[in-house]
Amino acid sequence: MTVSATTTDLVTFTADALARVRARTPLVQCLTNSVVMNFTANVLLAAGAAPAMVDIVGEAGPFAGVASGVLVNLGTLPSGQPEAMLEAAAAAGKAGTPWVLDPVAVGALPVRTALAERLVALRPTVVRGNASEVIAVAGLGGGGRGVDATAGVDDAAAAATALAERTGGVVAVSGPVDLVVGGGRTVRVANGDSLLTKVTGGGCALGAIMAAYAAGDDDHLATTAAAVAYYTVAAELAAEQSAGPGSFAVAFLDALATVTPETLAERARFDVG
Amino acid sequence: MTVSATTTDLVTFTADALARVRARTPLVQCLTNSVVMNFTANVLLAAGAAPAMVDIVGEAGPFAGVASGVLVNLGTLPSGQPEAMLEAAAAAGKAGTPWVLDPVAVGALPVRTALAERLVALRPTVVRGNASEVIAVAGLGGGGRGVDATAGVDDAAAAATALAERTGGVVAVSGPVDLVVGGGRTVRVANGDSLLTKVTGGGCALGAIMAAYAAGDDDHLATTAAAVAYYTVAAELAAEQSAGPGSFAVAFLDALATVTPETLAERARFDVG
Amino acid sequence: MTVSATTTDLVTFTADALARVRARTPLVQCLTNSVVMNFTANVLLAAGAAPAMVDIVGEAGPFAGVASGVLVNLGTLPSGQPEAMLEAAAAAGKAGTPWVLDPVAVGALPVRTALAERLVALRPTVVRGNASEVIAVAGLGGGGRGVDATAGVDDAAAAATALAERTGGVVAVSGPVDLVVGGGRTVRVANGDSLLTKVTGGGCALGAIMAAYAAGDDDHLATTAAAVAYYTVAAELAAEQSAGPGSFAVAFLDALATVTPETLAERARFDVG
Repeated sequence: MTVSATTTDLVTFTADALARVRARTPLVQCLTNSVVMNFTANVLLAAGAAPAMVDIVGEAGPFAGVASGVLVNLGTLPSGQPEAMLEAAAAAGKAGTPWVLDPVAVGALPVRTALAERLVALRPTVVRGNASEVIAVAGLGGGGRGVDATAGVDDAAAAATALAERTGGVVAVSGPVDLVVGGGRTVRVANGDSLLTKVTGGGCALGAIMAAYAAGDDDHLATTAAAVAYYTVAAELAAEQSAGPGSFAVAFLDALATVTPETLAERARFDVG
Repeated sequence: MTVSATTTDLVTFTADALARVRARTPLVQCLTNSVVMNFTANVLLAAGAAPAMVDIVGEAGPFAGVASGVLVNLGTLPSGQPEAMLEAAAAAGKAGTPWVLDPVAVGALPVRTALAERLVALRPTVVRGNASEVIAVAGLGGGGRGVDATAGVDDAAAAATALAERTGGVVAVSGPVDLVVGGGRTVRVANGDSLLTKVTGGGCALGAIMAAYAAGDDDHLATTAAAVAYYTVAAELAAEQSAGPGSFAVAFLDALATVTPETLAERARFDVG
Repeated sequence: MTVSATTTDLVTFTADALARVRARTPLVQCLTNSVVMNFTANVLLAAGAAPAMVDIVGEAGPFAGVASGVLVNLGTLPSGQPEAMLEAAAAAGKAGTPWVLDPVAVGALPVRTALAERLVALRPTVVRGNASEVIAVAGLGGGGRGVDATAGVDDAAAAATALAERTGGVVAVSGPVDLVVGGGRTVRVANGDSLLTKVTGGGCALGAIMAAYAAGDDDHLATTAAAVAYYTVAAELAAEQSAGPGSFAVAFLDALATVTPETLAERARFDVG
């Protein structure tokens, strides 16, 4: 079902999705970078999901077949993890498990750029990145536009649309206003707080939440937009009671665990276009 | 000396053990998963122990000979770590260093299950897991009962006893009421708070505390039960002043560092049977 | 320019450096241990720097050429990281990027000791360690004095001076009073709080701050002393509002982000000699 025909529909969907994730405890497999593993697991637990950092060859594939959703984040790529990522992505595709690709710093660094090209070919359900990363990924095996480190979200709109057409999935571009595109539709989400950029993993953990929300629903444009709104509204609530990035991170986990569907519905600022 | 003949004896032992660990600063070597390394080190520091995450081949063995206690946790198994675990466990056994095995997700995933079988054969001082994991480990090289993800602590009592007989050590099963068995004795510990399950590493770091408490005392049933009581009473104190999992984790580290032997003695709820 | 002729000059330099780092957002590449990656990244973000944990072969070298500063910390050495460290250090040297070596536990453990000898030969801009580590590193390829785990900062003064002469850089020895030597000059910094030793990465993350401060200024004795003062004054501010190591770590990140140049200048306790 396509629920995001209007902003009102999407607000209702988002509030329901929050309750649904907490009730279902989706099992989210994360193959992510060493810096943010701890924070990502805590974000998933706070959101009511069950994290499982299964990222070695021989286990990553079988687990992707039983997980509710999978995150593949290219942030550090410790020894053996790239092979496990390819194994997990292939198994997720075969099993119909939704999976999220976060192409951290792709375009700027060679090992991850080559890996991202192989992963994009496996058709991720969602690609999540900042504007520069989405532009870089869209150029892989395509026009090769390269990386623009100063790119804004709107600069990446055409690249995001092209990439979504290639994968057949959803592409989310992070920024002050987040952009989510897929299937010819576009949603902008205007929530959040700049303190989220002062906590490492502030973006990476959102990819895990997108995987949690993608589980059990076919409208991945809506689940991805709902994940963004949930996450960034929690950031707003946390920022209101923080004295800096340390206390913000603590309050953010509390807010993810305690925000109500009602508060989320009141504060979510969608622009469906 | 066997101190846990009665609940009163065990309460006294637990309060004394708290003071003893803080006075002795046991050096605890951790070969643990990438998700919880940071939290585990901070838990050990808060408890008055000295963490050392020495987990590479060529260093893990020599260090296990000089450490006060060793933790082997199978949570993620990054490249090279399994070989270092076997090296550390063998060296710990040879040197008489107590070591704790935490068989995370054993039974459900193949690489760690094969590794756990080899490690159990090296006779860990303590095996710590949830009910499903203990049942799975007890079945390795034995009856092969497999994993029951919904198993409760009491469902694992027979498996825990059988496993303790095989290793000659102690087996601890985590749950709302923790079960500790070994040498024909059984202790139940009825402390804790469910927020501990909402912080990643809430269970894993307890294994490190068990290693810290095992150092310097031969009655490992008592040291393990004392470690559980210390850890779960701190969780209760933290939960009383938390607004969610973020503030709970912070308050938990504070409580580990500041709980007094008197408070611990008052709140510890043992059932010796 | 050599700014640290007097204590007054150094105080002014330190307050200016704080503002400068926040304005410039130096890009700090960290090849560091798995335990403290998350904390180190958050410390850099709080300080106004941009962390990048690029630590794999094929990416570490190219990135060191464009980074503002590089940290090489030998704490855990996961598979593949030692080769990436050599690649990064060589590239940093070639590009003129300042880099900091933190020889964690060198002298006590064989793999890292052999690696440290190769890295010292590449002439780190700054070597940062506790007294025992600095004594051990100074003995590598030299007199071989070995490790003294109970060494105090003053016991390491001669070793620090000898090591600084060999590398042509700066050597910083951590302790209740920190010692910074290089180019025949010596600075002592008498700030800090013992709670910093109860948070894992309390020392390691200081190495990353030294790399952030070293960027864009040639007087590395001054930038290193300024980094120490900034970091340890923030620890004092945090300790004043902490109930234990958990709340201290949170308040410390807040203090790093919010301490003003004026407060820093008031509280910095330098002794130039």
